[in-house]
Parts: sequence; structure tokens; C-alpha cells
Amino acid sequence: MNQIVAEIITIGDEILFGQTLDTNAHWMSGELQKSGLKTGWRTTVGDNDTQITAALSVAESRADVILITGGLGPTKDDLTKETLARYFDSEIEMNQRALAELEDFMLRRGRKLNESTRKQAELPVKSEIVSNFKGTAAGMLFRKDGKVFVAMPGIPHEMKGMMTTTVLPLVKREFQLPVIYHKIVRTAGIGESWLAEKIVDWENSLPDHIRLAYLPTFGDIKMRITAYGNSKNDLQEEVAGYVQRLVPQIREFVYGYDDDSLAEVVGRLLIEKGQKLAIAESCSGGYVSHAITSIPGCSAYFNGSVVAYQNEIKVDVLGIKQETLNEFGAVSEETVSEMANNVRSVLNADMGLATSGIAGPTGGTTDKPVGLIYIACATDENTICKKLQLVQDRYVNIRLTTVAALNLLRRRLIEKD
Amino acid sequence: MNQIVAEIITIGDEILFGQTLDTNAHWMSGELQKSGLKTGWRTTVGDNDTQITAALSVAESRADVILITGGLGPTKDDLTKETLARYFDSEIEMNQRALAELEDFMLRRGRKLNESTRKQAELPVKSEIVSNFKGTAAGMLFRKDGKVFVAMPGIPHEMKGMMTTTVLPLVKREFQLPVIYHKIVRTAGIGESWLAEKIVDWENSLPDHIRLAYLPTFGDIKMRITAYGNSKNDLQEEVAGYVQRLVPQIREFVYGYDDDSLAEVVGRLLIEKGQKLAIAESCSGGYVSHAITSIPGCSAYFNGSVVAYQNEIKVDVLGIKQETLNEFGAVSEETVSEMANNVRSVLNADMGLATSGIAGPTGGTTDKPVGLIYIACATDENTICKKLQLVQDRYVNIRLTTVAALNLLRRRLIEKD
Repeated sequence: MNQIVAEIITIGDEILFGQTLDTNAHWMSGELQKSGLKTGWRTTVGDNDTQITAALSVAESRADVILITGGLGPTKDDLTKETLARYFDSEIEMNQRALAELEDFMLRRGRKLNESTRKQAELPVKSEIVSNFKGTAAGMLFRKDGKVFVAMPGIPHEMKGMMTTTVLPLVKREFQLPVIYHKIVRTAGIGESWLAEKIVDWENSLPDHIRLAYLPTFGDIKMRITAYGNSKNDLQEEVAGYVQRLVPQIREFVYGYDDDSLAEVVGRLLIEKGQKLAIAESCSGGYVSHAITSIPGCSAYFNGSVVAYQNEIKVDVLGIKQETLNEFGAVSEETVSEMANNVRSVLNADMGLATSGIAGPTGGTTDKPVGLIYIACATDENTICKKLQLVQDRYVNIRLTTVAALNLLRRRLIEKD
Repeated sequence: MNQIVAEIITIGDEILFGQTLDTNAHWMSGELQKSGLKTGWRTTVGDNDTQITAALSVAESRADVILITGGLGPTKDDLTKETLARYFDSEIEMNQRALAELEDFMLRRGRKLNESTRKQAELPVKSEIVSNFKGTAAGMLFRKDGKVFVAMPGIPHEMKGMMTTTVLPLVKREFQLPVIYHKIVRTAGIGESWLAEKIVDWENSLPDHIRLAYLPTFGDIKMRITAYGNSKNDLQEEVAGYVQRLVPQIREFVYGYDDDSLAEVVGRLLIEKGQKLAIAESCSGGYVSHAITSIPGCSAYFNGSVVAYQNEIKVDVLGIKQETLNEFGAVSEETVSEMANNVRSVLNADMGLATSGIAGPTGGTTDKPVGLIYIACATDENTICKKLQLVQDRYVNIRLTTVAALNLLRRRLIEKD
């Protein structure tokens, strides 16, 4: 079976100017993928006849299904319809079905057709209409040498309506699509190259139809395993076997699968172990708390936090001993351990998580450079502290610290009876 | 003067699978635009030698500056370097400067080089290194027939670092770009359509070579004024005149210009007025504190926060009266006002900022629906509270609340003598 390849062409100056983030192509890629259709290419061009024509021609040379969005509006800068008509050497005429659907759409909204809206029902004669139940611009489908071209509006919910109702079912019906199966293994607490080194034999054992990709974000690495074949069940079983051989080699770093997030996993563990959490943040400045509270329902296990940005707050609110601060400084194993332990009683929780460090870009010394950060996690039994040496960038340090702190909490929760 | 055209090629299966939203191309387009360089095309291809080569070849035929991101990691699925070397017919060898920079980067993080990380310092002989101060994968610059190709990692902050430090300055230096002048007026506390209505006459008075765009993010609206011409000084003067006529019409909403951020402006005002800030957060869960602490040097005016996610914490730590909670509930003007006022004394600050509400997606009632949020700001004189009715989405509510709270704080600071 030949691999059927899709190309997505998004049209719009506002995208190329960096004004509008192109979420359409992202959504379409995901939906095509789920349907077993590979997106081989994505191209973005401006509202410009020459560029659109060139993009169509390149796409025709390499893809089987070409999906186009944008430039179908009623205004002067919308050129897609005229360009497509020229490309397929077709006249444009009033399409009676498009007109009826348009009148119906306007009627349902209590509006009458004006001339510029009415013109939207004029379509290239060689196209088939793709109905738009959510807007006024009809979609168009062209066929050429076994290839399918579909042009849709750039307004996301109109495009999504057409894709779901018409385009995806048609593609599945007319093309023989392979099955694609994804499994994601999520890790934290290890760098990409260290991870790769640990599993090099396993990775080399993967057959050609199973591929691995590393997708890192601030110390949180997704390992995506993608399998291509004919039967979803077979692939699922085969991949499960590989995952079973993978996980024991990196068990301490694996926090979840597929759509799991680290904060979610930590939340589930807190509920499971009946533990309430409190946080004391210094250098992370509230971001660890934000990660925890971004999960709906976190009030079941999260009591609260103290962001102690000044030493006096560490002493007055968190009860850090003045001697500890004097002797070791705020950025030290001793202080962050006291923070983690004390915040438990201050906020009446079972477990305490704390951060203290030099986020940068300034404030570093020879002894304590920018990026030196301590994290600690306290239970009713003991406190475990970890030293991190991160980077020069404040933004990155805050995020890396947060992933490391959540992962330390996760490890402690797992060990807990 | 010929228009210099850029093409952006983003490489990554994860983008074509619809798993990772391509924000890199979006950011790069915006930055190129600001530098007077038009993005003519954007192309996304997979981690696949044939596809990458074809994309390079098409880009070379139509663009002057070709910017490539992704596929530079240390793992097997990262093919960009090898493909570029073949495309430019170049050997790959250890690059001593890249190796020195890599060793320095690892040293600063207290780590040693392993073999797979070390391999990242091997570069095509025909390329010039583009230093990566924020990660391990060096960038590469190639020249061919007056065109420039730059390959950068796909990790956003690494790519942004290279663009800002090396690529944009180089492009401005080596190509003759038309003059584009941007002025940004930043507003908060007013919706896009209300803002547009207030300034409709002003907007209609703009000449053809000056354009206005609204760029909203969670209640924070950038108004970008872009002028095209031949002399930067002339454009700057002309735009200044228009800004002078604009601002009086929307003065209370304008918080800054150009690269100002709301948290930065608030920080400057706190320093200027000699005020120390403390925060009490409920529904925003630490995100207001994060916004404040994302600004370097914030320890000059920020004492700390209490994230009080449980009523007992509101009572025990913030001293909220039990009667207030019983009579009005945690989500009320009365509670949030007490929070804002009390956190001043708890954390020894001059001003207190507080949030309490129902972030969602669950937890709403008929009386207090999801999205009902109160914010308050207390000074030594009085406390001002504001009621917000936001949306159903937790993620959005947290961000909208944060912008509204910072803006309330800003307004109070401006009024302060």
C-alpha cells in the first residue's frame, strides 16, 4: 500500500506577518493523523495570486490530498477562489446549491442576502461544493489525476465543521489509509542525551515501522513511539511489548503516559496516598503553585503556598531559624529543607515542597552562581533536598525548577506507604 | 530596492502529527517583520532527509534568507545537520569553537560532556557556527549565491536567543531592508471592540502608509502602529504625532509602550512610590505572584505571597474573619477585601493585592457561576474591590484575572501621592 500524503496550504498575510498564530494547520494535522493520513508538508503563503499558484503546483507534485484554508472571504484581499479557478482552468458561475444553502444560512440568522454575500455562492464550475453550515463562504473540492484539492475558509470553526462533516469522511472513503498508532512515554529528571544513552540498545531494536521521537520541554521529555501498519490492535500489542521492555530501564524517570501531565500525576498520587500538600517558594516565585493549581480539582489535595521572597518572611511566616539564614544563607540545603518542613505545619499539610535559589540574570556570586537552586520535599518522616545547577536564564530556571520540584514530590509519593 | 524575502522551514514530525503547535514560525515571522524583512513562505516538513532536501531546494529558488528550525538534537531522529551537510556538499568535522562553547556551557551547569552531547559540536565544514548560549546544539550558517541559510534548534528559547543575538543583526547588516517603523501602545482593562469604537475617528485619519493592528492576549491589548517609508526619523516623528493624538482618548487604559510589560510597569511604579507589595491569591493559584516575580530585580519591591486555597488557610494565616466566610463565602467582595488588606500586615507590606473566585471548569452555582472572580487592592488608606465575570475556561480565567489584578494595582499606584 502506498502511503497517502496530505499537504496543508494556509493562506493569509496576517499569518506571515506573525500577527495570527496558525492553529488551523495544527488542528488539521492532528485530525488527519488520527484518520491514518500523514501530513507530509505544510506551507503558508500570503494573499497573493503568484504565491498561491506556486504552492498549489508544488503540492500537486508531491501530495495526494491538498487541503487549503484562508482567502475565501468577501473582501478584496481574498483571492483564493479566483486563483483556484485559473489553476483548474474553470469559469466561475452562480452555484444554485451554494446559493440555496447561503439563503438558508442567512434566513436562520434573520438576515437578508446583500450583493457581496451573494457573490460567495459563485463557484468554479469544475468544483464540487463543500457545504459550510457555520458561515457564508462555501468550500470547494477539485479532482485532478486521482488527487483531491479542498479549499476551506480560514475561520477555525467553519473549517473544522467542513473537515468533520465532509472532508475527513470523504478521504477515508476514497483512499486506502494505513493505520498509525502512537504511544507516549513521559519522563522527568533526566536530560535527553542521557536518556538516549540509557536506551540505545532498545532504540536500535525497533523495527523499521516503529519510530521513536524525543520531545523535550523544560526537563519534561515526551518519548513518542509511532507505529505504522494495517491493524490498530496488532500495532497496539506490538508497541505495548516494546514499552514493557523500555520502562524497566528508565523506571525512576517515567511519570506517565499519553496525555498525562506531571502536575496531574502528582495530584492523583496525593489523593491516592491521602496526603495534603503545602508549598514554600522563593526563586520559583509562585510558578510551582501555579503548576499545581492549573489542574482542576486540586483543592482536594492542595492547601496553599507561601511565596517568601524576603528573608524576613522566611523567618516571620515560615519560622526559618535566623541562625540558619546567617550561617548558610537563603540559598542553601539547610534553608530550603527548613522551608519544606516548616510549611507543613504553617499550612497544616502532610507534605511540604520548597525552592530557593538564584534565578538570575543577576544576584550570583562565585560561591553561589546564577542557576544554583535547591529544592526540598518534606514528609512527616524526613526531608530530602536536591541541589540543581541550571542556566543563566530566569524564565528557563523558573520552569526547570518547577519540573524538578514536582518530580521530587512524585518520587517521594511513590516511595510512601 | 528589491524586496528581500525570507522563508521559514520548520522541521519536526511532532508538528506534522499535530502534537506540537508551531509557535516558532509565528514568533520568527513577527520578528522578521519588525526588522523590515518579509516572510514570503513558511514550510513545515518531517524529520526526513528527502523532504528536508526538497524544502531547501524550493526555498533556495524563491527566498533570500532561509531560516530553519528543528532536528538539531543529539538523538537518531534528528537529521537536519546531516541533510544540510549533504545539501551543501560538506564534510562534518569537530568544530573547536563549538566544542569550547559546549564545554563551557556544561561546565557552568556542573556537568561533564558525554559522547552523544560531544557529537553536537561536530559541524559541517562549510558552515559558520551560530553560538547557542542557552543549550547544547550549535546553530549553523551557510552562504550560497548571496543567499543565507541558518539552521537553529527547535527549542523556542534557544532559537530566540540565536535570532536576537546573531541572526537578526546579521540580516540587517548584510541586506538592504526597507524602513519599517513600529510603535506599540499597550493597554489593559478594556476589550478590543470597545477600544476600537473609542478611537474609530483617529483610526480613519491614518494615512495609507501607517497601519494599525490590535494584538490581544488575555485582556492585555497591544496596539501596533506600523509605518512604511524611507527614513526612520521621518516615520518616527510622524507616528509620534499620531500617538500624541491617540493617547488622550484612552489614557486610563494605556499602561506602557513598546516592550513594556504590565508586571514591569507595576514594578517601576512600586519603586517610584516607595511601596512594598504582598499578594494573597486564591483562584489565581500563584500566577499573579509568578507574573510579578518573572521580572528581574523584583525583590526590591515584592515581599511575598500567600496562596490560600483552603478556607482554613484564609483564617489561620491571613486572619480572615470566620464570620465573613460564613456570611458572604470565600468568593465575595468582603472576603477578597479582607485578604488584600490583611496580607499587608502578614507579609509586612504597604500594598496588598488579592484574588478569589471560581476558576472552573466545575465548582460554579447559580449565584456564583464559573468565571465569577473578585480582585482587590489595599493601601494604608483603603481597599478597592472589583468584580469580574469571566469565562468557562480555567486556563483563560487564571490569565485574565492576573492581568486585571495587575492593572488594578497599577491604577492605584498612579493615583498614589
